[in-house]
Amino acid sequence: METMRSYAEDIDGGRSPSVSMLSEVAAARKITIVGGSVPEMASGQLFNTCCVVGPDGEIKAKHRKLHLFGIDIPGDITFRESDTFTPGQEPTVVDTDVGRIGIGICHDIRFPELAMLYRSRGAHLICYPSAFNMSTGQLLWDLMQKSRAVDNQLFVATCSPARDPNSQSDFVAWGNSSLIGPFGEVLAAAGHEDATVIGEIDLSLIEAVRANLPLETQGRGDLYRLVDVERE
Amino acid sequence: METMRSYAEDIDGGRSPSVSMLSEVAAARKITIVGGSVPEMASGQLFNTCCVVGPDGEIKAKHRKLHLFGIDIPGDITFRESDTFTPGQEPTVVDTDVGRIGIGICHDIRFPELAMLYRSRGAHLICYPSAFNMSTGQLLWDLMQKSRAVDNQLFVATCSPARDPNSQSDFVAWGNSSLIGPFGEVLAAAGHEDATVIGEIDLSLIEAVRANLPLETQGRGDLYRLVDVERE
Repeated sequence: METMRSYAEDIDGGRSPSVSMLSEVAAARKITIVGGSVPEMASGQLFNTCCVVGPDGEIKAKHRKLHLFGIDIPGDITFRESDTFTPGQEPTVVDTDVGRIGIGICHDIRFPELAMLYRSRGAHLICYPSAFNMSTGQLLWDLMQKSRAVDNQLFVATCSPARDPNSQSDFVAWGNSSLIGPFGEVLAAAGHEDATVIGEIDLSLIEAVRANLPLETQGRGDLYRLVDVERE
Repeated sequence: METMRSYAEDIDGGRSPSVSMLSEVAAARKITIVGGSVPEMASGQLFNTCCVVGPDGEIKAKHRKLHLFGIDIPGDITFRESDTFTPGQEPTVVDTDVGRIGIGICHDIRFPELAMLYRSRGAHLICYPSAFNMSTGQLLWDLMQKSRAVDNQLFVATCSPARDPNSQSDFVAWGNSSLIGPFGEVLAAAGHEDATVIGEIDLSLIEAVRANLPLETQGRGDLYRLVDVERE
C-alpha cells in the first residue's frame, strides 16, 4: 500500500493530475463526471477520494471513503486499509445537472445505512466506484448494488477496473461495472473486460416506483428509525 | 381476502387447528418448529401470524406481520393488505434450542431495518415465511434473503408455498424456499415444486465471519445509527 502514498494527489492544493484530466474532459464535453477514486494527500493524511466534476470543469463534490476495508483470516489474508488510509468524515450528496447523487467508494457499499441515509437526503442515484476482488465480486457485487437500489428505490451505478487475469499483483478486480434501476433491474452492464457502457436513467421512474409501492410509508417508524447524525 | 376471515384461527383462545398440529408434531419429534403463517383472529382483528413451537409442544413466540403489503399500479393491480389485516406491534426474537431466531413474514423482508434490529438483538437466524408472486419472486426473492444475511452476517431461512401454475386463483407463488449463510451462500434450496429440504446450520460460522470481517466495528456510528425504539 506504500505505492498509494507515492501516487497520492493534492486535490485541495490544485495539484491533482486526475482531477485536471477530469476537469478538462468535463468542461470540453459539458458533462458531469463522477470520477473513480484516487489516493489523496491532505494535511499529511492519505484518503481514498472520489471527485465529482461539473460541466464547467469545477469540482462539485469530493467524497472521502468512509468505511475502510479490513479483513483478517489468520493464515490466509490479513489486510487493513486503515494502516494506510484515514477515513472520511462526511457522507456526500451532490446536486448535479443530472440529479442528486450520493457517493460511496467500494466498501462503503457494504453498509446499508449509508444508502438509506442518501435516500433520506433525496439522492436519485448512488455511485460507487469500487474494486471488488474475484471472491468478494462473485459473492457480493451484484447483490450489494441491487439491494441498495431496491431497498431505497433509486438508481445505483458502480464502476470497477476491468479484470486483468495476468495482473502482476495479487489483486485481480472483478470488473462488471453496472447501472441498476429501482426494481433491481440491470439497465446497463460491462462484462469483466474493458468496456464503455451507456445507460439511460429516467428519473421519473423513482417517483412512479415509490407511488406504486410506498416502502417509506409502509415502514415502521414506531419500531425503528435511522438517525442521520449530521442532520439530527 | 374475505376468505382469510373465514379461515382465521383463535390462537390465544387455544382454538387453532394449525397450532395444534404444529404442537403435536413438535412434541412428538422433540423439535422446534417455525410454523409458516396463518390468519389469526384476536379481539375482532385479523393478523397475519407465525407461531414458533418448542419441543414441548408449547408456543414459544408469536409474530404478527409488521409490514403489510400494499401496491397500487393504476389500471393493473391495486391491493392493500391493510384493508383486511391489522399489523403487529412488536418485532419477534425467540431463544430456542437451536439458537436465537428473529421472525418476519413476507413483506417484512423488504425492510432492512427489521433485519438490522434482529441482528442487534442477537439473532443467529431470521426466518421469513413468505409468499412472493411470480414477478416479485423473479426480481426480489433471492436478492432480499441474501442481502439480509450478508448485511447482518447471520443465517436467513425462507419458506414459500410451492408454485402451482394451475392455480385457480390469480396468485401463483414463486416457491424456492431457501437457507442462506452469512456470506450469502445458498446452503439448501427447494426448487419451485413441493419439496422437503434439509440444511445444516453451523452457528460458529457467525462468529468466524464477524471476526474475519468486522462490519459492526467498521460501521460509522458517528454518522448514522439505527434506533430500536422498544429498547431505546
